[in-house]
Amino acid sequence: MKSILVLNGPNLNTLGKREPAIYGSMTLERIQELICARGRELSVSVQCFQSNHEGALIDYMQQHAEQADGMIINPGALTHYSIALRDAIAALPFPTIEVHISNIYAREPFRHHSVIAAVCQGHIAGLGWRGYVLALEALVDQLQSRVERAV
Amino acid sequence: MKSILVLNGPNLNTLGKREPAIYGSMTLERIQELICARGRELSVSVQCFQSNHEGALIDYMQQHAEQADGMIINPGALTHYSIALRDAIAALPFPTIEVHISNIYAREPFRHHSVIAAVCQGHIAGLGWRGYVLALEALVDQLQSRVERAV
Amino acid sequence: MKSILVLNGPNLNTLGKREPAIYGSMTLERIQELICARGRELSVSVQCFQSNHEGALIDYMQQHAEQADGMIINPGALTHYSIALRDAIAALPFPTIEVHISNIYAREPFRHHSVIAAVCQGHIAGLGWRGYVLALEALVDQLQSRVERAV
Amino acid sequence: MKSILVLNGPNLNTLGKREPAIYGSMTLERIQELICARGRELSVSVQCFQSNHEGALIDYMQQHAEQADGMIINPGALTHYSIALRDAIAALPFPTIEVHISNIYAREPFRHHSVIAAVCQGHIAGLGWRGYVLALEALVDQLQSRVERAV
Amino acid sequence: MKSILVLNGPNLNTLGKREPAIYGSMTLERIQELICARGRELSVSVQCFQSNHEGALIDYMQQHAEQADGMIINPGALTHYSIALRDAIAALPFPTIEVHISNIYAREPFRHHSVIAAVCQGHIAGLGWRGYVLALEALVDQLQSRVERAV
Amino acid sequence: MKSILVLNGPNLNTLGKREPAIYGSMTLERIQELICARGRELSVSVQCFQSNHEGALIDYMQQHAEQADGMIINPGALTHYSIALRDAIAALPFPTIEVHISNIYAREPFRHHSVIAAVCQGHIAGLGWRGYVLALEALVDQLQSRVERAV
Amino acid sequence: MKSILVLNGPNLNTLGKREPAIYGSMTLERIQELICARGRELSVSVQCFQSNHEGALIDYMQQHAEQADGMIINPGALTHYSIALRDAIAALPFPTIEVHISNIYAREPFRHHSVIAAVCQGHIAGLGWRGYVLALEALVDQLQSRVERAV
Amino acid sequence: MKSILVLNGPNLNTLGKREPAIYGSMTLERIQELICARGRELSVSVQCFQSNHEGALIDYMQQHAEQADGMIINPGALTHYSIALRDAIAALPFPTIEVHISNIYAREPFRHHSVIAAVCQGHIAGLGWRGYVLALEALVDQLQSRVERAV
Amino acid sequence: MKSILVLNGPNLNTLGKREPAIYGSMTLERIQELICARGRELSVSVQCFQSNHEGALIDYMQQHAEQADGMIINPGALTHYSIALRDAIAALPFPTIEVHISNIYAREPFRHHSVIAAVCQGHIAGLGWRGYVLALEALVDQLQSRVERAV
Amino acid sequence: MKSILVLNGPNLNTLGKREPAIYGSMTLERIQELICARGRELSVSVQCFQSNHEGALIDYMQQHAEQADGMIINPGALTHYSIALRDAIAALPFPTIEVHISNIYAREPFRHHSVIAAVCQGHIAGLGWRGYVLALEALVDQLQSRVERAV
Amino acid sequence: MKSILVLNGPNLNTLGKREPAIYGSMTLERIQELICARGRELSVSVQCFQSNHEGALIDYMQQHAEQADGMIINPGALTHYSIALRDAIAALPFPTIEVHISNIYAREPFRHHSVIAAVCQGHIAGLGWRGYVLALEALVDQLQSRVERAV
Amino acid sequence: MKSILVLNGPNLNTLGKREPAIYGSMTLERIQELICARGRELSVSVQCFQSNHEGALIDYMQQHAEQADGMIINPGALTHYSIALRDAIAALPFPTIEVHISNIYAREPFRHHSVIAAVCQGHIAGLGWRGYVLALEALVDQLQSRVERAV
Repeated sequence: MKSILVLNGPNLNTLGKREPAIYGSMTLERIQELICARGRELSVSVQCFQSNHEGALIDYMQQHAEQADGMIINPGALTHYSIALRDAIAALPFPTIEVHISNIYAREPFRHHSVIAAVCQGHIAGLGWRGYVLALEALVDQLQSRVERAV
Repeated sequence: MKSILVLNGPNLNTLGKREPAIYGSMTLERIQELICARGRELSVSVQCFQSNHEGALIDYMQQHAEQADGMIINPGALTHYSIALRDAIAALPFPTIEVHISNIYAREPFRHHSVIAAVCQGHIAGLGWRGYVLALEALVDQLQSRVERAV
Repeated sequence: MKSILVLNGPNLNTLGKREPAIYGSMTLERIQELICARGRELSVSVQCFQSNHEGALIDYMQQHAEQADGMIINPGALTHYSIALRDAIAALPFPTIEVHISNIYAREPFRHHSVIAAVCQGHIAGLGWRGYVLALEALVDQLQSRVERAV
Repeated sequence: MKSILVLNGPNLNTLGKREPAIYGSMTLERIQELICARGRELSVSVQCFQSNHEGALIDYMQQHAEQADGMIINPGALTHYSIALRDAIAALPFPTIEVHISNIYAREPFRHHSVIAAVCQGHIAGLGWRGYVLALEALVDQLQSRVERAV
Repeated sequence: MKSILVLNGPNLNTLGKREPAIYGSMTLERIQELICARGRELSVSVQCFQSNHEGALIDYMQQHAEQADGMIINPGALTHYSIALRDAIAALPFPTIEVHISNIYAREPFRHHSVIAAVCQGHIAGLGWRGYVLALEALVDQLQSRVERAV
Repeated sequence: MKSILVLNGPNLNTLGKREPAIYGSMTLERIQELICARGRELSVSVQCFQSNHEGALIDYMQQHAEQADGMIINPGALTHYSIALRDAIAALPFPTIEVHISNIYAREPFRHHSVIAAVCQGHIAGLGWRGYVLALEALVDQLQSRVERAV
Repeated sequence: MKSILVLNGPNLNTLGKREPAIYGSMTLERIQELICARGRELSVSVQCFQSNHEGALIDYMQQHAEQADGMIINPGALTHYSIALRDAIAALPFPTIEVHISNIYAREPFRHHSVIAAVCQGHIAGLGWRGYVLALEALVDQLQSRVERAV
Repeated sequence: MKSILVLNGPNLNTLGKREPAIYGSMTLERIQELICARGRELSVSVQCFQSNHEGALIDYMQQHAEQADGMIINPGALTHYSIALRDAIAALPFPTIEVHISNIYAREPFRHHSVIAAVCQGHIAGLGWRGYVLALEALVDQLQSRVERAV
Repeated sequence: MKSILVLNGPNLNTLGKREPAIYGSMTLERIQELICARGRELSVSVQCFQSNHEGALIDYMQQHAEQADGMIINPGALTHYSIALRDAIAALPFPTIEVHISNIYAREPFRHHSVIAAVCQGHIAGLGWRGYVLALEALVDQLQSRVERAV
Repeated sequence: MKSILVLNGPNLNTLGKREPAIYGSMTLERIQELICARGRELSVSVQCFQSNHEGALIDYMQQHAEQADGMIINPGALTHYSIALRDAIAALPFPTIEVHISNIYAREPFRHHSVIAAVCQGHIAGLGWRGYVLALEALVDQLQSRVERAV
Repeated sequence: MKSILVLNGPNLNTLGKREPAIYGSMTLERIQELICARGRELSVSVQCFQSNHEGALIDYMQQHAEQADGMIINPGALTHYSIALRDAIAALPFPTIEVHISNIYAREPFRHHSVIAAVCQGHIAGLGWRGYVLALEALVDQLQSRVERAV
Repeated sequence: MKSILVLNGPNLNTLGKREPAIYGSMTLERIQELICARGRELSVSVQCFQSNHEGALIDYMQQHAEQADGMIINPGALTHYSIALRDAIAALPFPTIEVHISNIYAREPFRHHSVIAAVCQGHIAGLGWRGYVLALEALVDQLQSRVERAV
């Protein structure tokens, strides 16, 4: 069974509790449940992790690099400056999709640039919690294509 | 039955024929068929249009503004400079999702900025032809939520 | 009888129908009637043209270059990037006045720069539909001064 | 009877005497007479003031803020750096129109940016002394529309 | 008895009368009374001066340079461009604290930079009229420390 | 009894021990004692926390968001790049005042910009350890005004 | 027989009629005749096309991509912003040479940058109508070298 | 007898009293005496004026424009932003030489750019009070050359 | 016996395992062994530490500041944005040498700037694992020179 | 007989020996022979010079300024910074054509700008050794046109 | 007897022969004679040197560093990029004055910045050949002041 | 026996004589002796060359390209602008290490960028004369590794 990592960075643990006008009213726990449920439908295992610590996110990626087949990451504000996160993603042996709940391009100028986008396979922004689910579908779809091609 | 517009800008009519390393080997016709097929599954009608003319894309949007419920657009290179396209999208009464086949953030610097992103609801890049299908699912999902809330 | 061209660029055909908070509630048709009416009072003929196509605006200018005595242009979003429009205006044998309905300097930064301003004689912004009429009066006033000086 | 202020900033008292190739050959006195005459035709009172002192222009605006209904201002070179002037205009309870005799967009790059444009209602440049008269007509037209709507 | 200067620049004489959402509803006169009252409690004399003229502010500083022991200045919009004010402050033989009523860092980008900050001892922004009183307390505290150390 | 958080970021635990020419000779422990003492005089409880870890500062804020009434933060060097800290502050339900011991505007250019200033209520720099005490007084003063107004 | 496309963009249809000081006094028709004549001498067929429409130029390239062996293009003002044109050229299976009649590096700064230069094989500017003929010779020379090498 | 104006801008009235390490220990009064003495040797009359007010400097120039034959100006900090001063100098019918006592190019970056340099004939910096005398000699030398050529 | 700290930042614990084309095939453990071996030859003790956490690196430096005589640091991606790391290094009482395994100047532009370089004594890049050993030799050489001079 | 100078700057003496992927496999000696041969066909004398010294190139131009009728120059890397070379070319009494063997616009960004382009008549890049021959033909063509017009 | 070096950089050997509108009609030889003559009047020896080679200018300075008491340099275009020249001047044990014949601030933007200005004592521009003589007088004046003070 | 070139650029011949605070008190001759001595220990021949002429450095490299096995270069100020030097280094068939005596990153901003760093293998700065010796050791170490691998 394929395994997908779902990482969330700083402040995303407060989703649903604060600034719902920007981030929606759904909590991170609820979003993680929805992703896991969709994972079960697609027959992949989903492992979720959130941290406010850049270093903890990198540690987690390194520790799971051998056991996973894909990653979905919403790095929160680290998106805009954490080159260390970028390097950690670039070193992973599987594809990563970057997800943002809000449309970062319609917010402050400093949110328009992602230092990790260039090392991810794909980028989804502005589609709310659905963005995570769409990313999961895209990853699983790819994994299956590869398997099919290999057969 | 809800109606979704799918627009493609300059040079996307040559998809599959040229530079498959960047854009994949699937033709625009085939991608449009896949989107339509997925639309039928989701019970929405899909109307596709491609043009190399900025003005023709704007004309098309204005002409269909009253009859549609959502739009998916891949503006091709117009992404990076057509403020006229931006204004046309901003005037539409329904949500738009911007789609790019390649990961524009991993290419030349001038492709990292989209002048239309701020007036779209969402943004999907780097997921190949799947990006269009994911955008369609996201739009339909939203339309249904609204209907359900209204009931 | 002197002849004045009045050109409007992309999206201005939707005036009055969309975003009235920014552009006012008057349609382009009504504004064109007001300009024509004022033209009749001032004894000049007024010819109006709108297109969403950069190329069509340039074609129109070239075709009417010999028969007109002045031009009023609101290039819409082309204001900010169409150097081709700039070159077409620079080649005209008569003066042009640039008109913007909204105060472009109080909007997004990318709207603060006009690539055509340097080749126009004058520039009017933020005065709504009246801007077109004032531009017409300014052009006619100039044409009469020249005639009077010639007499 | 409505009252309109007409302010002119540094060096505009030398109009007509110096650099007529750029600014025309009409003196400020003559231009002020023309504006007043047009004011009489339009049944508004016009009060003119010129100073080379940024502070004196601000003092004047503050002192007349309660008694006036609109303002026309050509801040001369202060246009490009006087944020103090900008703040004074922003605090006025009536609309202001910015006027420039020359086409500032066809001159040195540092003249292309106006720090006051964003707090004015409208902006007229390059139409010579007529720019002041057109601004007066636009202001009066607005005031009348409001009165008519109120009736 | 120690003496503190309190200077206010352009447009601050209209405090309380205009834009209370940004600047609060207290007039400059009332703020100056509060500062003076606090000065009496702290046993220092306070001298207040406001002008819309950059030159008058510099004249005032030069004339009082010998008789004062500290200065509090809110230069208003001059903050952002008056290098002449900066040079005048740099030449004073006593410490200066810069005060802004509003949080200039949460407003337009051109308000984020102060040309005088580098030559002041301290900088207080966003704390409303209290900012002046806090600055006074900080200055007096320092003066007393020096006296105590000297004893 | 109202509760105020006092946070200090990276390297501020070495205050008084290193670079006293820039940061003064008082240790962080001593400064925290002074703030607490002043808190007792003002009848508010003060809770102090220092960490060299961006993530730990964010964790602390989130954990205390419900129990506090205001925050004073000196983020040290994180001031200049930690957008994650900014987002955590923006999500707090109470006002924050940013404090810097040194005058950051008189140091290296990269210290002139604070990424958190826009989401704080106020900003104090260059007043040494007194800056914390002044910030405390300003917060308490505000809280009392609100209470009084509510009475 | 080898076939070479010669494309001209916006406003180049007015060559010889306007601004001869910059562009020379020869019409586009005459230049096209000279290129064709030289083509006959070199035993290649030459097909000329001019349009003021970016989209029409792209359509033309796509339609002739299979039947041609090389292209000469003077994109006029589109040189400076049409990334769509760039993408169309990049997709062609044969070499392109960019030609400018005037020395664009001796004109306004915005004319110093070509967005298409990087995807063309060569670049000729400032040599007037001769530039087209030289480009034709260079293309033919290359085609022959290839043939010779193949023999 | 030829007449030369010598203007000094903000803060130069404190020369010799403050910051002698940068500006030297000579007062402005003494420097003006030295210039006048040199003027008597060269048989020209010298008129000196200093003001901290930008507007007063402009007023002075306009009032003496008809009676003078040359000007030496040290605009102090206005050098770096007063475009109004620039316009006033550009309108003078005689040559101006800009003088700076200190080497502005060896100081803070914002002092490296002069907005008036382009409209002056010459520029002298870093030579202390001698700079004024050298400027006077250069102006007188020029005036004599013209007279001699005319004879 | 002198003591040298050797710190490595984020992702350097994966050396040798990933991207060997850029970083070589030697693991961090092996490199640390080589440094320690060389340290034994040079009669200095070497203490190695690696962390993916900016805060942990700062904690470590502060805890060992009193017991060490020099530091070698490869901050990984923190090189480019961690001003907190810079401040921690600047506060150390002994010299630091910055080492990069790859030639950061031959990689992406964002890797060309080091925010810590200015507070280190020396900088070595592009010499692979040898860079650490060379840095150790340089530090020891310096320490011995000082001792010799002191004798 | 007309005389044409052909100058080559730093490192072009190694043409054909190094980096043939960029610069081709033909040596400078062979290219110079081809240019001379073409010169004989066109009845002009060609003088070739190469130096790695900016000063030597300028000396050569000055020494031959009186005896030549045109110049072709490939300044190598001096293209991008040698304003001294620019000034030397600008002072020549005959036209110059700048030639680059490779397409400098498709290489590193610092190679996209030529400081000499504005003072040359024409600019040819990316056409390999043929660029020199085409430049020679263009120069000779011009010289003949002038002679013919003079007859 | 004191000794002054007078250096001139690239292209200044053609003074008087080319572009007299910018540089005047006097040759470098004549200017050098005038400087030497003035030197004799002031009882200092003057040594002149011109080269088109950056390296030769540096060699000359190093060779004469011990025997001279001051330097006047017009580096020509090297002014704008030769940091090597800057370093050579910075190493001289005597003061240098930079002279430019034309007003470099009224020419192309790239001529507005001097990389050597910060290491020279003074800077004279726009005063033609007189600039050299004024620089000589200023240097001699300084040398005498020092001698007098020493007596 | 392997051969290493050691090149030094402008002004490095004055090492030890001037500005010892920045560059140390050791002469270039002494440094070259130390490098040669170390070369003898390592059994490689070392050839040293210094010039103030960019062209002479390039000539030297080209002449020795065939006979050497590695290069150490300190280009002095040419580091920051000599793209010609960069191109010469890029063409060498052996590795180059760039050495700077001072820490260029702790000096003026214009010294923070090296145009040659990207084409060198390694970069050492701030380690004084030891930097050359370390570079030599690194080069020899590499050469031996290659030989050993080849055996």
